[in-house]
Amino acid sequence: MLLLRRCQSLTRFGPLNSQRHQVIPAATSCAARLWSSSSDDQRSHQHAHSPSWRHGLAGLLAGTGAVLAYVLHHHKAEQADTITVRTIEKTSSLPIFSQEEVKKHRSLEDGVWVTYKGSVYDITEFVSMHPGGDKILLAAGGALEPFWALYAVHNQEHVLEILSEYKVGELNAEDQKKQQAIKSTDPYSSDPERHPILRINNLKPFNAEPPPEILSDNYITPSAIFFKRNHLPVPQVDPASYQLHVEGLPGRALTLSLEDLKTRFPKHTVTATLQCAGNRRSEMNKVKQVKGLNWGIAAISNARWSGAKLRDVLLAAGYGPEVAQWARHVQFEGLDKDVTGTTYGASIPLNKAVSEEGDVLLAYEMNGEDIPADHGFPVRVVVPGIVGARNVKWLGKIIISAEESSSHWQQNDYKGFSPGTDWDTVDFKSAPAIQELPIQSAITTPADGAVVDRSEEEVTVKGYAWSGGGREVVRVDVSLDGGKTWQVAQLRSSEKGQAPEPSPPPGRAWAWKLWEVTAPLPAKAQELEIVCKAVDNSYNMQPDTVAPIWNLRGVLSNAWHRVKVKIREDESEE
Amino acid sequence: MLLLRRCQSLTRFGPLNSQRHQVIPAATSCAARLWSSSSDDQRSHQHAHSPSWRHGLAGLLAGTGAVLAYVLHHHKAEQADTITVRTIEKTSSLPIFSQEEVKKHRSLEDGVWVTYKGSVYDITEFVSMHPGGDKILLAAGGALEPFWALYAVHNQEHVLEILSEYKVGELNAEDQKKQQAIKSTDPYSSDPERHPILRINNLKPFNAEPPPEILSDNYITPSAIFFKRNHLPVPQVDPASYQLHVEGLPGRALTLSLEDLKTRFPKHTVTATLQCAGNRRSEMNKVKQVKGLNWGIAAISNARWSGAKLRDVLLAAGYGPEVAQWARHVQFEGLDKDVTGTTYGASIPLNKAVSEEGDVLLAYEMNGEDIPADHGFPVRVVVPGIVGARNVKWLGKIIISAEESSSHWQQNDYKGFSPGTDWDTVDFKSAPAIQELPIQSAITTPADGAVVDRSEEEVTVKGYAWSGGGREVVRVDVSLDGGKTWQVAQLRSSEKGQAPEPSPPPGRAWAWKLWEVTAPLPAKAQELEIVCKAVDNSYNMQPDTVAPIWNLRGVLSNAWHRVKVKIREDESEE
Repeated sequence: MLLLRRCQSLTRFGPLNSQRHQVIPAATSCAARLWSSSSDDQRSHQHAHSPSWRHGLAGLLAGTGAVLAYVLHHHKAEQADTITVRTIEKTSSLPIFSQEEVKKHRSLEDGVWVTYKGSVYDITEFVSMHPGGDKILLAAGGALEPFWALYAVHNQEHVLEILSEYKVGELNAEDQKKQQAIKSTDPYSSDPERHPILRINNLKPFNAEPPPEILSDNYITPSAIFFKRNHLPVPQVDPASYQLHVEGLPGRALTLSLEDLKTRFPKHTVTATLQCAGNRRSEMNKVKQVKGLNWGIAAISNARWSGAKLRDVLLAAGYGPEVAQWARHVQFEGLDKDVTGTTYGASIPLNKAVSEEGDVLLAYEMNGEDIPADHGFPVRVVVPGIVGARNVKWLGKIIISAEESSSHWQQNDYKGFSPGTDWDTVDFKSAPAIQELPIQSAITTPADGAVVDRSEEEVTVKGYAWSGGGREVVRVDVSLDGGKTWQVAQLRSSEKGQAPEPSPPPGRAWAWKLWEVTAPLPAKAQELEIVCKAVDNSYNMQPDTVAPIWNLRGVLSNAWHRVKVKIREDESEE
Repeated sequence: MLLLRRCQSLTRFGPLNSQRHQVIPAATSCAARLWSSSSDDQRSHQHAHSPSWRHGLAGLLAGTGAVLAYVLHHHKAEQADTITVRTIEKTSSLPIFSQEEVKKHRSLEDGVWVTYKGSVYDITEFVSMHPGGDKILLAAGGALEPFWALYAVHNQEHVLEILSEYKVGELNAEDQKKQQAIKSTDPYSSDPERHPILRINNLKPFNAEPPPEILSDNYITPSAIFFKRNHLPVPQVDPASYQLHVEGLPGRALTLSLEDLKTRFPKHTVTATLQCAGNRRSEMNKVKQVKGLNWGIAAISNARWSGAKLRDVLLAAGYGPEVAQWARHVQFEGLDKDVTGTTYGASIPLNKAVSEEGDVLLAYEMNGEDIPADHGFPVRVVVPGIVGARNVKWLGKIIISAEESSSHWQQNDYKGFSPGTDWDTVDFKSAPAIQELPIQSAITTPADGAVVDRSEEEVTVKGYAWSGGGREVVRVDVSLDGGKTWQVAQLRSSEKGQAPEPSPPPGRAWAWKLWEVTAPLPAKAQELEIVCKAVDNSYNMQPDTVAPIWNLRGVLSNAWHRVKVKIREDESEE
């Protein structure tokens, strides 16, 4: 964890543009060091082709990221040269195919073939192991390049190496020329500038979190350091021609301009915390490698959102008791698209969407300004109390329906499983899509590995706490001795020094609480194991340890947060 | 736990009437054995008068029960004779008071005096330690007898012994005669007959739970074995003259007869699980003694309730948007009263009461029949998803208000605290009244200490799981090795062999799920530590261990449930 932070810090300073292309190699080399102490890493190269290895690998890769993961279960970077040589030798005797022949292999029945830089690969066996799910089939029969431009995580030496195992031939010279003529542009080239302080977990799509100690400095997180979790390139939306379509209700579909949204419906403001389902995933990775971005504790932030109530818009679009008879879900489609035109999508239960107390917004402002590009300009859904993944950005379409969204992210991602469930046994249909998140808290300061001087006599511990579903955090317990004894932290629901906000109505506590406790340093301790756990007003508590809530996707990581701090007895000894 | 069960089993068989007065002594003697191994019990008699002892004692006694608790922190029964002798010696030189003089001491300022069997006691110092809270002040200036008749837990040798420490004099002969003329009747004499299988935790008021292995035999718990948690004597209500008053709304108060309730409002049926806040308290007692009835894992049951929707009744009584402007709570008063006429009371948030999806019932049927006397005949409130204590029985009055109920049970009981909070530091105002309960599950079979023959080759584990607030249980994980590895149990939401009930709408899963898993006996294990933990659809999980959620009142005990089972290798060896 410490090492990881240090690695991430490499990417923190200097102008971002010049950094962008350095980030991945830096993280990779750190990751190699980070993981080199992992027992998983002891597997020899000889076992690389066994099924368990392949599933292990599948378990490593984020649907849309996880740069670090590629390194882990494969083998060390220094072995890469040998591989390349072997691949080349292997190649020499392989047949030549035409693009037409490749095109015939577009299904599991006919085989799944792809091309990359003039070579042909039969990846049929790899499909079930692909971390991004069956989205890999979109590339079947054609070139990988445009997809890899979209999901930049693939642009890794080690991914090429995996691919090389599936090589079956070469593309003929003529078709190679044709392919090269189609220049693949970088779909991320118009992504916005970002604040250099962000700790980048993945560059394309952009995923980053603020340093924890800065996170808890503000009750309202400034938009620039609000954690960013994009699934696709940031779309360029012209606010003047923006249209929001509302479908699935009786009569004609309703289409609203941004101006309509701002003028035809009352403006509501809600302070709401958003949290990524993968927040604190890195702690699960320490138990056993999971698939997903290696988030620290700061994939959570709090903002003031303003916009029209979704309920008001649905009522204007024709929602009524007859619709309630059959409708169960409200689907959202983003304007962010992959190369096939598939948009990001998700859905929430209808009752949350239409409840007067649900406070679901079609937000066009974040912290009093237009929503920034990274957070969904010009309109995003804000679904307070619900996992970030359903708060669809760059909102293009709302669909009232009897069924949940059929999107990958609703059906085959963002779900929790038993620690005993692995990629061989997982049935995504068996678990509900994550909506409300469980009680959560973490320590933002001191950092793990920090040193406190004995002469300071006391230690101040700070953090955040939040619960999903509008359940208010009512208490945070803090321990300095690993959970043996506990004290109660002071909670804060406003900026420091400001009067606390009035208590929210029951079930509508959408915002986090920041907390702080100052305690004397225990007399004889040389090290503190600082632990926090929060309680919400349904008296849900956080689980004690990570392993029993470990799940293959690394979501819902909400065990007690622990940091170790050393006490330095005498400065002169150092 | 095992010993306790064995103790309880003493009260299980035979006709109940003849058993009633044997129950307490039997339980007491078992308790003495049970607790004699506790380290707390090592305190010597010499320390009995220190403040920490007094607070310890206060921590032992239930507001309305806890027969066992009296035994623990005091000293062993065999020492009682010495005490009695000492008390008598002490008495001889004490002054004589008139009832008039005693009456002047009715406050902490003037001192709090009471009489008992002709003696006068100054209990001023004891008031803050009284487990039943300041309700003790109701007896100030008068006789204890009528109160002790109501709260039969006081009728213990050890309570008399505590009382003797506060003796300050004798009542004069004339006033003694007057007091004896007022015959104190047993307010529990008309309590209903109960099923002998119930495990009685307290007789007066009646508190009992079914044996766990029977509990999970039925998806719908038969009313006779549904756990019973009364706070006061069961009131005798004549259904013909029954009146329900609805107050606090504009215009005249509404008064409804039972017939009105049945005929003027649509009848709704809801399957809902009720759970006592103290369910599984006995596990907290093993960590450190708490104050409250020593419930096992069966203070939870599931029934079908039918009646009018509270929402409909409130609308008929004048509830509307203007009321919503100022009202925040709905208070309930029972018809069960203590000697001062104070009724049992509680409140719930208004939004739960008036929500169409809250499903709060004024129930007059339980499992298709009139609600039995022990469960609130003729009308009780059923507040699905909310702690049992707010499901007020023998409902007499409904009050719409800006404030919560001022009752003892809402303000100074049924709240959760940090494990670091003790009776010296507790501030009841600092914690919210328990409403929704957290995720819960327990193993009903095998019982702790059971023996499984190796020849059976596998073990079947059964239990229940439920979560408050309408959150549906989506998974139960079961471990045979103390939590190292986990498997997923089969869930059931209907009687065995019947088709499952349709999935409830989101946020309205009011009923528990029963679960079961059959697993091979691990090859080399001599003992299994079976553990279960449940997950609800907000992905809340149970905490791993009891100590970090321990609280002085012993409520909200929802850590993983654990039972140990021995494997007998060869029957001939036994």
